[in-house]
Amino acid sequence: MSKKLFILSLLVWAVGCFSHAVVAQPPRGPFVVSPQINSDKTVTFRYLAPSAKEVKLSGQFLKSPMEMVKDSIGIWSVTVSNIKPDIYPYSFQVDGVTVMDPANVSFFPNERFKASLVDVPDNPPLIHALQNVPHGTITYEYYPSVEGTTGSVVVYTPPNYDKDASKKYPVFYLISGTTDTEETFFKVGRTNLILDNLIAEGKAKPMIVVMPYGNPMAKIAEQKGRSKPADPTSRDGADAVNRAKLFEVDLVSNLIPYIEKNYRTLNNRENRAIGGFSRGGGQTLRTAFGNMDKFAWICCYSSYLSTSEMESNFKSITEKPENTNKQLKLFWIGVGDEDFLYKGTVEFMDYLKAKKVNYKSLITPGGHTWMNVKTYVAETAQLLFR
Amino acid sequence: MSKKLFILSLLVWAVGCFSHAVVAQPPRGPFVVSPQINSDKTVTFRYLAPSAKEVKLSGQFLKSPMEMVKDSIGIWSVTVSNIKPDIYPYSFQVDGVTVMDPANVSFFPNERFKASLVDVPDNPPLIHALQNVPHGTITYEYYPSVEGTTGSVVVYTPPNYDKDASKKYPVFYLISGTTDTEETFFKVGRTNLILDNLIAEGKAKPMIVVMPYGNPMAKIAEQKGRSKPADPTSRDGADAVNRAKLFEVDLVSNLIPYIEKNYRTLNNRENRAIGGFSRGGGQTLRTAFGNMDKFAWICCYSSYLSTSEMESNFKSITEKPENTNKQLKLFWIGVGDEDFLYKGTVEFMDYLKAKKVNYKSLITPGGHTWMNVKTYVAETAQLLFR
Repeated sequence: MSKKLFILSLLVWAVGCFSHAVVAQPPRGPFVVSPQINSDKTVTFRYLAPSAKEVKLSGQFLKSPMEMVKDSIGIWSVTVSNIKPDIYPYSFQVDGVTVMDPANVSFFPNERFKASLVDVPDNPPLIHALQNVPHGTITYEYYPSVEGTTGSVVVYTPPNYDKDASKKYPVFYLISGTTDTEETFFKVGRTNLILDNLIAEGKAKPMIVVMPYGNPMAKIAEQKGRSKPADPTSRDGADAVNRAKLFEVDLVSNLIPYIEKNYRTLNNRENRAIGGFSRGGGQTLRTAFGNMDKFAWICCYSSYLSTSEMESNFKSITEKPENTNKQLKLFWIGVGDEDFLYKGTVEFMDYLKAKKVNYKSLITPGGHTWMNVKTYVAETAQLLFR
Repeated sequence: MSKKLFILSLLVWAVGCFSHAVVAQPPRGPFVVSPQINSDKTVTFRYLAPSAKEVKLSGQFLKSPMEMVKDSIGIWSVTVSNIKPDIYPYSFQVDGVTVMDPANVSFFPNERFKASLVDVPDNPPLIHALQNVPHGTITYEYYPSVEGTTGSVVVYTPPNYDKDASKKYPVFYLISGTTDTEETFFKVGRTNLILDNLIAEGKAKPMIVVMPYGNPMAKIAEQKGRSKPADPTSRDGADAVNRAKLFEVDLVSNLIPYIEKNYRTLNNRENRAIGGFSRGGGQTLRTAFGNMDKFAWICCYSSYLSTSEMESNFKSITEKPENTNKQLKLFWIGVGDEDFLYKGTVEFMDYLKAKKVNYKSLITPGGHTWMNVKTYVAETAQLLFR
């Protein structure tokens, strides 16, 4: 957008604000375009703040925040080059205050932080890109959940799901991380587009993906008018294990029956997979190990269980490894080499190895990020239900 | 949450930040609870900013922003009483910078501003409240749109839609306002819950609601890698009319055929309604008047067409009012008495009256707000397809 157009738009906006002063009213016009993907593959970020003293860009594609520069009409901007194509969370630091990009509708659904998302495309398109292939659909559902509450879940059905009413599908239960919501695997993980693209290329089997909300204890508090309980203070303390148990009960007793009643599913362990990221990875392992009759496919993204929890709660998994290895069609573990859970995950893999429990693993560059999660989803989706 | 618990949570958070310093990592734990609905019906808003100089609460339930007060650990808070039960957009002004509430996952999907949403409940529950009734589902779809682009749309199907494969439904096309997205009628308008509740009470006929994205010109720019075009400088200038035409072409030639192919719909004008808010109201009137063979029900929320546009483009509507009145099962216009479009809407109604075109109208207190939109949706949904 040219500077002249910016100024024009700003005038339109100013006039709009003045004439609509009586009621709060969004200004008209895209007076700031941000983020803007440029033809030379650089990306320009902009933020309107005529009276701010300092504006910085913070993003998971940067090692440290970048200074932005203010123009004569108060629009701060910075152009970043050499961003590896991917989808990244970012925000602005406006005089030290973290804000989402007001001009960008794409955001990271999370209960504790707010970030916008920038999608840096590649050519040929990345596996999570919107492409001209048959698309599945995303459905938001309510279901009867623990303690009489109403649970919320997001469900992906593959392309042409509605075309053949006799066809049944395997189901992948996919659980997001701490403070993420049931939307995060859709909005940030682009699970629907990854599946659409893999299915179009014949690289993944058509499947239903069920994305639950991971914290039913909070849902109970919310719906019963109580204060939301503080999160557990450790990843594998008694409180965390109890919460994971509540999730497991909800998944096995409420959500799976609901899904199998309302979708055309194949209802046996060979056609049920479970996977998750971070807290959802822990819930995946606990739920799968506690319900080996329910799941034959396990995908653990950036998470692990401690040796002590394995020894006290899941002895059955390691006591007769030949049984476990026979039962599990896939036991997959992925983690980033800069992930703060990397060390624990490697220890977990060493423990499994020592116990002769088979697993496949993928160590990627990077940290505890949704860039890595998308890679893991794309990798594992190709292995499931084969 | 007690102050002791706050401090404990803050310590947990601080430790978390420190130990995970290598990678950007969301802090654990709900160390700030906001908004908190108290048992005495007051609402407490909180924002953590130890180094901010001034934090204010801004919200559509307030006449002007309220000062917040900082406690010893840096959490700013204010408790507001006497908020009329409803769902309101709000934000914090942190040293003059507008931010969403980081502790609140509920937000207003919009391309130009960022606001959180607070849901102040009532007893008995309001018509948009999540209640223990059969629920419909919300589906996110892609469809082939103008100029080879991929359009996005959100679709509500009523409770038990999947139970009887022979049953067909009428369809309500519902269009959101300028800079809103296809998600706004779902996330802010709670159209799904309003319909669930009305259907459960027998007050609305089961229907499909189709919520398109209202700005296909922007979608073309986005998908063809061009800059997003500036919004039109007036509501009824040539540019605005051209954009409305593009929307109309997309709706009539692409979206309606897609919906009627993929859902069990009743495919005649008596079973198609169209409605919209603000820009979507203008698109509603233009699309309906230009396609009287397609729609028999019109719902115009907080919008109007100018007399000059009516005279130049839609003479057929007023020339033989007896035909129009016979064709339209409902022509409904709602507007708030403080809406900046109130005057124009009243002039539009006066014009229709003079031309002997029948309509029903509802003037509500308040402005150009989604509190009013929800009222209008609930009112009109009860009248449709009767």
